[in-house]
Amino acid sequence: MIKSVIDILDLSTEEIDSLLATAADIMENPGKYAHACDGKILATLFFEPSTRTRLSFESAMYGLGGHVISVPGSSNSSVAKGESVADTAHTVSCYADIIAMRHPQEGAALVLANNASVPVINAGDGGHCHPTQTLADLLTIHREMGRFHDLTVGVCGDLKYGRTVHSLIEALSRYPGVRFVMISPDSLRIPTFVRDALGAKGIPFRETVSLEDAMPELDILYMTRVQRERFRDQELYEQVKDSYILTPEKLQNARAEMRILHPLPRVNEISVAVDQDPRACYFKQMLYGRYMRMALILMLLGHPAPAPSRPLIYDRFVCKKRTCITQTEQELRQAFYQVGDSGIYRCIYCESKAK
Amino acid sequence: MIKSVIDILDLSTEEIDSLLATAADIMENPGKYAHACDGKILATLFFEPSTRTRLSFESAMYGLGGHVISVPGSSNSSVAKGESVADTAHTVSCYADIIAMRHPQEGAALVLANNASVPVINAGDGGHCHPTQTLADLLTIHREMGRFHDLTVGVCGDLKYGRTVHSLIEALSRYPGVRFVMISPDSLRIPTFVRDALGAKGIPFRETVSLEDAMPELDILYMTRVQRERFRDQELYEQVKDSYILTPEKLQNARAEMRILHPLPRVNEISVAVDQDPRACYFKQMLYGRYMRMALILMLLGHPAPAPSRPLIYDRFVCKKRTCITQTEQELRQAFYQVGDSGIYRCIYCESKAK
Amino acid sequence: MIKSVIDILDLSTEEIDSLLATAADIMENPGKYAHACDGKILATLFFEPSTRTRLSFESAMYGLGGHVISVPGSSNSSVAKGESVADTAHTVSCYADIIAMRHPQEGAALVLANNASVPVINAGDGGHCHPTQTLADLLTIHREMGRFHDLTVGVCGDLKYGRTVHSLIEALSRYPGVRFVMISPDSLRIPTFVRDALGAKGIPFRETVSLEDAMPELDILYMTRVQRERFRDQELYEQVKDSYILTPEKLQNARAEMRILHPLPRVNEISVAVDQDPRACYFKQMLYGRYMRMALILMLLGHPAPAPSRPLIYDRFVCKKRTCITQTEQELRQAFYQVGDSGIYRCIYCESKAK
Repeated sequence: MIKSVIDILDLSTEEIDSLLATAADIMENPGKYAHACDGKILATLFFEPSTRTRLSFESAMYGLGGHVISVPGSSNSSVAKGESVADTAHTVSCYADIIAMRHPQEGAALVLANNASVPVINAGDGGHCHPTQTLADLLTIHREMGRFHDLTVGVCGDLKYGRTVHSLIEALSRYPGVRFVMISPDSLRIPTFVRDALGAKGIPFRETVSLEDAMPELDILYMTRVQRERFRDQELYEQVKDSYILTPEKLQNARAEMRILHPLPRVNEISVAVDQDPRACYFKQMLYGRYMRMALILMLLGHPAPAPSRPLIYDRFVCKKRTCITQTEQELRQAFYQVGDSGIYRCIYCESKAK
Repeated sequence: MIKSVIDILDLSTEEIDSLLATAADIMENPGKYAHACDGKILATLFFEPSTRTRLSFESAMYGLGGHVISVPGSSNSSVAKGESVADTAHTVSCYADIIAMRHPQEGAALVLANNASVPVINAGDGGHCHPTQTLADLLTIHREMGRFHDLTVGVCGDLKYGRTVHSLIEALSRYPGVRFVMISPDSLRIPTFVRDALGAKGIPFRETVSLEDAMPELDILYMTRVQRERFRDQELYEQVKDSYILTPEKLQNARAEMRILHPLPRVNEISVAVDQDPRACYFKQMLYGRYMRMALILMLLGHPAPAPSRPLIYDRFVCKKRTCITQTEQELRQAFYQVGDSGIYRCIYCESKAK
Repeated sequence: MIKSVIDILDLSTEEIDSLLATAADIMENPGKYAHACDGKILATLFFEPSTRTRLSFESAMYGLGGHVISVPGSSNSSVAKGESVADTAHTVSCYADIIAMRHPQEGAALVLANNASVPVINAGDGGHCHPTQTLADLLTIHREMGRFHDLTVGVCGDLKYGRTVHSLIEALSRYPGVRFVMISPDSLRIPTFVRDALGAKGIPFRETVSLEDAMPELDILYMTRVQRERFRDQELYEQVKDSYILTPEKLQNARAEMRILHPLPRVNEISVAVDQDPRACYFKQMLYGRYMRMALILMLLGHPAPAPSRPLIYDRFVCKKRTCITQTEQELRQAFYQVGDSGIYRCIYCESKAK
């Protein structure tokens, strides 16, 4: 079976270490890799627009000497309309050596990987996974701090819906001495499943509504946006919104060696005045993202490997989630897995619980 | 004059044989061709979306070491709006060495070819021609069956409007011992002009409404879709639709060496359960399409040749077809040709009859 | 500071001469430049569609052996939506070595250049500047006439709003012996600021409403379109429109060595019958545009140079122009400059006057 990366969990700690090492080597010796993918073709299939991510993948492939074919994100693509994701997989496997796909439905990337004869990288499937964002975050932290262990990591903003935050917490939980500070309005607190996972692993964290209060203890400040549309109570939004906008004033009590990350795009949650601060790392993060994508493409094209497997239960449950790929894909079988021995079953495409 | 391919009839039997041989050689020795088009530029101008065809052309060009510039099929392109096809031809000839165009109007590809100073490949002009699809079909049959002669070819579905079917019949009619079985609902039978052409050449065929009835005698089964919107009588559609969906059950009486083709995309006219059948060839057909496009690009870039000519009659008739390029193109002269000595005249752009 | 080209005025006469020489050398020795940009990446960011210009840049980059990443002009790009131009600059600087941007707002290219760490070429910012069109015009005149000096240049059509005309007049005003004939309907006469600039430099020009009257004296005829929507009085439009359509008849009194230019696309302001006239140069102009863009990319990638500076006045005035980038860009400071010693101040982004 071809190795694909749909979820950050598809990568072992060893594989992540190896990607970090490769990315570092590319940064230092770009010429060594300039023809590593000569004659290879990357397909970037963006069935919803995400220009930044798409350009990052394409720039990465060109940095390796390869070619790119692209569905650049217009909504009226004929591959998107009236053709199943599985058929798209069969088709594009004829044209490309590796595929990066963005799709509005949860599980679409998994369906693509299950039907493609080439490696697939999930570049975002609905609100589900976006593993190369997490890889970019990890490389940024590693390059800037020199380590993953013994860090106090603040995550700020919308912790309820922010998938990049959940993935980052998951990935950093693998390292010793990591501590989290969860900074958010009450209505956007970190979900129970994340809190439970941290608790189960005995990883320390605290929750607060005040960014200024948390600031002095942080090694990393990971900012995300607090969106108006997440609030039922618009008055409440007006009250809290300014507390989650990062300004030079709020940085006064921060450590000199703290680093500020953000998955971008920002709207106004970080003042432009912060951009000049040496602690601001969010533009560098873009650059690190490109190198990490280069490393990932190299790994997937170089090392076909067995994918991790878990026992699947077919056709016992039916997924009801409106945005799950099971709702639209022709003749796709329902498939669930059991979470440990919990008796809880989740859809393999969108992770929603069986009822 | 530059050689362009607008219609499958622009290629002689010898040229098709040569393309098949080149495609086979590319499949066996891809490295030999990896730099055949170094420094050359293909323009893919898709004025209506057809992602699969576009990606196939682009992948083909990259497999030859060339570059690609693209209008990827968004409807709001400024080349499409307010500029004539002839001016587009002049312009893009400055930027590319060869052009593949898809356009919603019949005859647009011919207008492009008549004004371009580089070879043009028609990647579909309205409901008119799509020669590289036919080339893909031919290579698939040739590779899978080892011959074109002495084949019983079933074509199933919408035989009235399906241009790929008409072109395939036309192309296969050149070879001895070919027989056709036309499988369709009554209201979507093969048009008179195709029947007449077969009759004139003495090529045997029969018509049937039953796919199951035809199955045992077929060497090739070419499936197309029966679309609801083609039926005036929706009750009739409901009655017949399932008969034209290919399932493992319907395949039980088929020959072991039969091959199933489909131009894709499919909607549901072939069950996903058929995909695993060794007779299913529609995904391989995609791959063959890429190799045939590589061979065609090579031929057109390597061998400028005189185009076939036929005497044209200017300005005696006026084409009335709403989707013909003559309706919109600035100062384009009306041009018709006589079909043999029949006294019938057809528009050179859309083939509709002069009244 | 990185050298960018936002306005034709960013290039000195010496730099333009050097670009003309490089373009000529590329035309004669394309092989010499075929790998000049190996491994380099051009980003073409088209936040409004302009396919012709985009394809020209991309073809230019491929002619130099480089790569291209692209936002091809769909209006629903996520870089365009919700992200500031400054952030786009930071992001795309991570992915590309040089950027060509088209944007609907005046000043967007300047904001991009001020924040990018790579050279920026303005491929059109609203109704403001489009310097590579002017460079294409200049190369066309230079190649076809052998000189810039001692030319009578007719500019015809919409002289009020036509930015390409204003830039061309500005650029040609640098050379001795140049004379202009301004041919337009009364309501679309050349604006006062252009007339004043010519007057201040002592450059001769005359104005006329008759193309036929001007024809015999012209060395260059630069055609632009007279658009219906520019006329408040539709009856007047109907009266004058045919006078500004170039036909073979109107060319009867033109010099044999006159050259006809047009920035394209044309709608119907030049009859197709003129295309075969040896004086018609507008399609060659496309080709020259490609070579000039190659020369410009080479110059900007090869020679980082100090940008010209002028003293800026911050935050004293506020720009009110609806389409200026200052209306939307997050935390962008208002910046104006004084025109000479005139006491007139203009916005550095859109050139509108301070009130």
